[in-house]
Amino acid sequence: MNIGVDAMGGDFAPQAIVEGAVLAANELPEGVTIVLIGQTEAIQTVLDKQNYTGSNIKIVEANETIEMGEHPVKALQAKPNSSIGVGFKLLKTGEIDSFGSAGNTGAMMVGSLFSIKAIEGVQRPAIAGFAPQTNGKMAVMVDIGANADVKPEMLEQFGLLGSIYYQATTGEENPKVGLMNIGEEAEKGSLIAQQAHKLMKENAKMNFIGNIEGKDFFKGKADVIVTDGFTGNILLKMGESLYGIMKDQGVETSFLDKTNYEAVGGSPIVGVNGNVIIAHGASSAKAIKNMIHLSTKIVESKVTEKIKEALSA
Amino acid sequence: MNIGVDAMGGDFAPQAIVEGAVLAANELPEGVTIVLIGQTEAIQTVLDKQNYTGSNIKIVEANETIEMGEHPVKALQAKPNSSIGVGFKLLKTGEIDSFGSAGNTGAMMVGSLFSIKAIEGVQRPAIAGFAPQTNGKMAVMVDIGANADVKPEMLEQFGLLGSIYYQATTGEENPKVGLMNIGEEAEKGSLIAQQAHKLMKENAKMNFIGNIEGKDFFKGKADVIVTDGFTGNILLKMGESLYGIMKDQGVETSFLDKTNYEAVGGSPIVGVNGNVIIAHGASSAKAIKNMIHLSTKIVESKVTEKIKEALSA
Repeated sequence: MNIGVDAMGGDFAPQAIVEGAVLAANELPEGVTIVLIGQTEAIQTVLDKQNYTGSNIKIVEANETIEMGEHPVKALQAKPNSSIGVGFKLLKTGEIDSFGSAGNTGAMMVGSLFSIKAIEGVQRPAIAGFAPQTNGKMAVMVDIGANADVKPEMLEQFGLLGSIYYQATTGEENPKVGLMNIGEEAEKGSLIAQQAHKLMKENAKMNFIGNIEGKDFFKGKADVIVTDGFTGNILLKMGESLYGIMKDQGVETSFLDKTNYEAVGGSPIVGVNGNVIIAHGASSAKAIKNMIHLSTKIVESKVTEKIKEALSA
Repeated sequence: MNIGVDAMGGDFAPQAIVEGAVLAANELPEGVTIVLIGQTEAIQTVLDKQNYTGSNIKIVEANETIEMGEHPVKALQAKPNSSIGVGFKLLKTGEIDSFGSAGNTGAMMVGSLFSIKAIEGVQRPAIAGFAPQTNGKMAVMVDIGANADVKPEMLEQFGLLGSIYYQATTGEENPKVGLMNIGEEAEKGSLIAQQAHKLMKENAKMNFIGNIEGKDFFKGKADVIVTDGFTGNILLKMGESLYGIMKDQGVETSFLDKTNYEAVGGSPIVGVNGNVIIAHGASSAKAIKNMIHLSTKIVESKVTEKIKEALSA
């Protein structure tokens, strides 16, 4: 298994990325190779400093970098040899089994749509985030930012994509799918949420448990939380902020530890023909290490294949 | 000053409401009377049990009650002598200066719109919620649930209403108004948020600081948080859930204490011709006590008059 990682993406690249790769390399089983994509010299310098002598980190040269503020479409066209551009080429040809980056999220989305493309039948790929639950589980929230504006049918499909993702990665059958809304009753909420509720209720392919509210977000009511990318992004970022806030106040609990973005390290794009993982822009070495572990889990779970099957059935 | 309170509204009415009124009565200055609206006998029974012998609680009979699940418009028409129906009559005639209820929120909104009505120039009244900040302040969030679907112009006006509310109740001039969004840049977010950003930036009547993100929600970046009633409601309820979650884990901090809904006790409707306060359905006596204190502050602040002035200018 080859886990591709953009060595140049993120606020602390390449330092934190390469360090994270070394941390992961020391923990990964045989047969897993980390493919660092970026400027060979810069990567090698960090590897040398880390005294890395193992054989499960490989470097693939990419001499350009897409910066955080760049326009995704323009940047990808102008910089085919950027680490993100090269990453998608390798993903498309199968030279890597997954591609993760802490760089420009927009470029990762656009790269996915233009190179490996959306799975047939997927209306709009989405980003899946993780929401720690007080029952110890980790719920999957779809979407957390790819689609700020949605249609009811998209929300319905997010439920299906999230369901398959949750099932494939946890092994738990029949995950509970909840629609984020502002009341329990079917007729509550925005017009889009009301219509989505109806569609999801009628959809036999998922275990729809109805609306869930903000107060249920952390409470284990749903395994899959369905929402638009606007609400989902705001909720996720607010949730992530708790870790720092409470730590500043001297509070530490196992639940809070899980709200730390480093604990998971990345958010997969669901609904595209390949395994793409987006990491936090401010990713530390620890976050990158966990993103690499997450990537191996995603590859093993064959979730992309399972989504394809479900949509062609 | 006469503070009207629906004695029959809420999960623990009339017990918790009347108890809360007694707690408040013992703390309020002279000249403030609490007007409990509901079934006299039921109210008197609780007052007797509390050994209340003061003179600043008054009872106004209302022999019907609108239940939580009832359709707001139908219920108000069918039950003119309900505690909510009578409350709005008293508010309209000026016999009470504010009206608060932990009962049917929809009926409180509809009652406001049909009896005291929206202030001229207000597109849609909204509900203002309170979001505790790590800098010790309490930000005002508009809207937290009255308008699940909004137009950009409505968001712009929520900024103005929230601004006036914040200024009137805290005395702080020129509050910072932030638009809840999924990125800092003007072109980020939903189509509605993008357009609202533009309108707010051009509006000289408020101190617009730009977009704020989920991670900024608790961080004191904005004094006034503008969002649609869908996002706002979900954020508020998620925020409120933290108190219980952390308490279950044995954590207590001054910041967390403020996330407890009881600390404020109610959410004012802004943009109507009168002071209307909505309390949590599960309000305890302590929550009701604080809602009454909040009501006196709102009446004193003359915020409703100030909104009228601002919109007629």
